[in-house]
Amino acid sequence: MEHLDDQERQEVWANIKDALFNDHIDQFRAEFLELHPYDQARIFEDLEKDVRLQIYTYLSPEEVADVMEHIDYDEIEPFFTEMAPPFAAQVFAEMSTDDAVDIFNELDKDKVASFLTIMDDDAADEIKDLLHYEEKTAGSIMTTEFVVVKAGMTIREAMVHLRTEAPDAETIYYTYVIDEDKRLVGVISLRDLIISEEEWLISDVMNERVVSVSVGEDQEEIARMVRDYDFLALPVVDFQDHLLGIITVDDIMDVMEEEASDDYSKLAAISDVDSPDDHAFASAKKRLPWLVILLFLGSLTASLIGRFEETLDQVAILAIFIPLIAGMAGNTGTQALAVAVRGITTGEIEKQGKWKMMLREAGTGLITGFSCGLLMTLIVYIWQENFFLGLLVGLSIFLTLVVATLAGSLVPLLMHRLKIDPAVASGPFITTINDLISIMIYFGLATAFMNLLI
Amino acid sequence: MEHLDDQERQEVWANIKDALFNDHIDQFRAEFLELHPYDQARIFEDLEKDVRLQIYTYLSPEEVADVMEHIDYDEIEPFFTEMAPPFAAQVFAEMSTDDAVDIFNELDKDKVASFLTIMDDDAADEIKDLLHYEEKTAGSIMTTEFVVVKAGMTIREAMVHLRTEAPDAETIYYTYVIDEDKRLVGVISLRDLIISEEEWLISDVMNERVVSVSVGEDQEEIARMVRDYDFLALPVVDFQDHLLGIITVDDIMDVMEEEASDDYSKLAAISDVDSPDDHAFASAKKRLPWLVILLFLGSLTASLIGRFEETLDQVAILAIFIPLIAGMAGNTGTQALAVAVRGITTGEIEKQGKWKMMLREAGTGLITGFSCGLLMTLIVYIWQENFFLGLLVGLSIFLTLVVATLAGSLVPLLMHRLKIDPAVASGPFITTINDLISIMIYFGLATAFMNLLI
Repeated sequence: MEHLDDQERQEVWANIKDALFNDHIDQFRAEFLELHPYDQARIFEDLEKDVRLQIYTYLSPEEVADVMEHIDYDEIEPFFTEMAPPFAAQVFAEMSTDDAVDIFNELDKDKVASFLTIMDDDAADEIKDLLHYEEKTAGSIMTTEFVVVKAGMTIREAMVHLRTEAPDAETIYYTYVIDEDKRLVGVISLRDLIISEEEWLISDVMNERVVSVSVGEDQEEIARMVRDYDFLALPVVDFQDHLLGIITVDDIMDVMEEEASDDYSKLAAISDVDSPDDHAFASAKKRLPWLVILLFLGSLTASLIGRFEETLDQVAILAIFIPLIAGMAGNTGTQALAVAVRGITTGEIEKQGKWKMMLREAGTGLITGFSCGLLMTLIVYIWQENFFLGLLVGLSIFLTLVVATLAGSLVPLLMHRLKIDPAVASGPFITTINDLISIMIYFGLATAFMNLLI
Repeated sequence: MEHLDDQERQEVWANIKDALFNDHIDQFRAEFLELHPYDQARIFEDLEKDVRLQIYTYLSPEEVADVMEHIDYDEIEPFFTEMAPPFAAQVFAEMSTDDAVDIFNELDKDKVASFLTIMDDDAADEIKDLLHYEEKTAGSIMTTEFVVVKAGMTIREAMVHLRTEAPDAETIYYTYVIDEDKRLVGVISLRDLIISEEEWLISDVMNERVVSVSVGEDQEEIARMVRDYDFLALPVVDFQDHLLGIITVDDIMDVMEEEASDDYSKLAAISDVDSPDDHAFASAKKRLPWLVILLFLGSLTASLIGRFEETLDQVAILAIFIPLIAGMAGNTGTQALAVAVRGITTGEIEKQGKWKMMLREAGTGLITGFSCGLLMTLIVYIWQENFFLGLLVGLSIFLTLVVATLAGSLVPLLMHRLKIDPAVASGPFITTINDLISIMIYFGLATAFMNLLI
C-alpha cells in the first residue's frame, strides 16, 4: 500500500465520520487505529470541536498521545485546553518526554504547572528536569526513555531486560552500557546482540568507543554528527559522563528541517517562511519589521545619492545605471554571503582557515568584476555611444564587485567571531552595505572625472 | 568518548603515520580500524598518494569500501584511479549498492564499464540495474541489500534467517514479508520480532499496512514521508508491488541536506553553495553565469529608466529614490517568493489551494504597502520639505509593494504549473521583474504629475 493520498484520506475519513455519527465505537477504533499516527493527526485536526470531544472518550490517553505527537506544536494548544485536565495530564504522561517538553514550551506557564500537579509523579519529574534545558541544545531535544544494561550481564539477561523495556523505550536498536556509577562505558546495537551467543558477556561484545554528546551541545552540531556518522541514536551525557538521555534520528530530521528553513528564511529577510496557512495580517506581521528596517536602510542610500545631487544635475543620465550597479553589488554580496554562511554552518571554513577563504573570495571578485566590468563597458559604449560613460560604468562595476564580494564573506565571518548567528546578516544588512559602497564608488568616480563626461 | 575533535584527530593521526612509516601493519590496523569510517575517511583524504597506495595493501577491499563510502563523491575519482583495477572492483563489490551507484555516476563511462567487467557477476548485475534509474528518484537512492522473509515462516525461522543475512544487510531493523510472487505483503520490525513468541507465524505478527514508495518517486517527496512518518527505512516497489529495494534513513538525511542546500543556493543565485574548498576560478565559474544574466537584466532596467530621461532632466532629485524603491520591490518579492517556494516544497499550498494563497498575499501586500508607503511619505516630507515628492514616493512604494508581493508568489506558482522547479525563479528573475515594475510605477507617476513636482 502506498501512503495515504488525498483521495484515500477522503474515503477513510467518510468511514470514520460514519462511525462517529452512529456512535459505533468499535468501528471507529478499527478504522482509526489502523492508520499511521501521522494520518490520524491529519484527520483529527480537520474535525469540529464536539467530534473531537467524542473521540477523547473513544480512545485511551496513550492512543491520543500518539495522535498529539504528530500535530504541529504551534497549533496544539486548543486541543489540550478542551480536554478534561486529568485526561490531558494522562496524555502527557504517555508521550515521549521530549515531545511532552516541546509541547509544554508552547503552552502558558500556569497551564503547564496545573498539568504537572495532577500528573503521575515520575512522569512529572522527568518532564520538569527536561524543561530546564536551554532551547536548541541536546538537553532540550533528548528523551529519557532509553534502555541501559550493566557491563557484567550476559547477552541472555540483556535480551530479557530489553524485551521488558521495549514497549516504553524510544528506541531499542541501541542499548547503552553503564558502570556502577551510572557512567556511560559502552554501547551495543540490537544487531550485535542478536548475532551474539547467549552466554557471552555484554562487556565482551560492547563497543567501548561510544560517541556521545554533552547535554549543552548545539542541536545543529548534533545533526551534523548524526548525518556524518550515520547514527540512529546518540547518547547525551553530563560533564562526568553520566548518561542523561538519548537523541533519536527522527528528532534529528526535524532539527535539520528547522535549521534549513531558518537559514532560508533569513536569506529571504523574513522571520519564518514556513507557515503558508497564516492569514494576511499574521504574514504581514512577519515581514513588516524587515521591510521597515530596509526602508530606513534604503533612506541611507537615498541620502547618500542626495549628496551627489550636483553631479546628478549636471549629468542626469548617470541615474540610469544606479539600480544596475547597486543590484550587481547586492547580488554578488548575497552569493559570497551564502557561501560563507554555509561554510560556517558545515564547519568547512573552520577547517581550511578564514584567510584562505578571504583570499579566494578576493580572487573570485577580481575575476567576476573584470568580466562583468568589461562587458558593461562595451554595452554602454555601443548603446550610449559615449566611451567615457562606458568606462565609468564598467570601472564602477569592477570595483563594486571586488569590494562587495569581500564584504559578503567578511561580514558573516565577523558576526561569527562576535558569536552572532551569521545568517542574520544576510538579506538586508549585506545588501544595504553593498548599495552604499557601490553608490559611493560610482558617484565618487563620476564626480572626480566629471570633465570627461560633459 | 566524544567524537573526534581536531586535536584528537591530530594525535591519532600521529600514531597512524608512525605505524605507516615503520611498516607496522598490525599497529596501523589496530589504530585505524578503531575509528569510525567517517573519521577514517577524513584522515585518509589528507594523505599523500604513496601513503594511500601503502594503505590499500594493509586493508581488505571491505575495509577500504567503508572508508570510500564516507568520502565526498565529487572528489573520489582519483582514489579509484590509483587503485589496481581488480582491487577497485572488489571495493565496489563490497560497498552498499546505492553508494557504489552514486560513485559510478561521478566516474567516466569507460572506467565504469571496465570495473563492471572485472567485478563479480552478481554485484555487477545489481549495480547495473540501479544505474538505469533516473537521478533523484527512489530507484537511484535505494539499496538492494535488504532482508525478506516469507509470510509462512515462524518467528524462530525468521530470526535464524535474519542472523545469517545481518552482515550484508543495510538494515535489519525492518524485515519485509513477501508472497509467492515476490510481492510485498507486510513488514515486521526487529522490535516486534524479539518480543514475539518463537513459534508464532510471521503472518500473525506482521504489519500488513506497509507503506512503500514506487521506484520513480521523487526523492524530496520520499524525504518528506520518512520525516512525517518517522520511518527508519522505506521499501521501494515497482507498479506490481514487487519489492525492489529499500531506502534507509541515513540516505534520507543526505537527501534533505542536498535539497535544502539546493533551495538555498538558488535563492542566493549561485549554482552550488556547498564547496568552500574551491579555488577562485572554480567559484567564479559558478557565480559568473548568474552575474552575467543579472547584468543583462539590469541593463533592461537601465534602458527603462533611459526612457524617462526627460523627466529625470527636469527633476534630478527623483534619482535619489530609485535604489530605495527598486530595493523594496526586490525585498518584498523575495519574501513572497520564499514563502511560495517553501509552500510548494512542503505541499502546503497544494493542500490549501492557490487562490487562497494569492488572496492572502494580496492582503499582505496591501498591509505592508500601506504601512511603508505612509512612513516614507512622512520621512520624505520632513527631509525634503516637499509634500508632493513625499506623496509620490509613498504612493510608489505602496503600489510597488502590492504588485511585487503578488508577483513574488505568482511567478513560482506559474513555474510549478509549467513543471519548472520554482526555486530557479528566485534571486535574479523575481528581482528584475520587480525592479522593472517599480521603476515603471515610480517614473510613470512622476511623469504624470510632473506639474506638481516642479
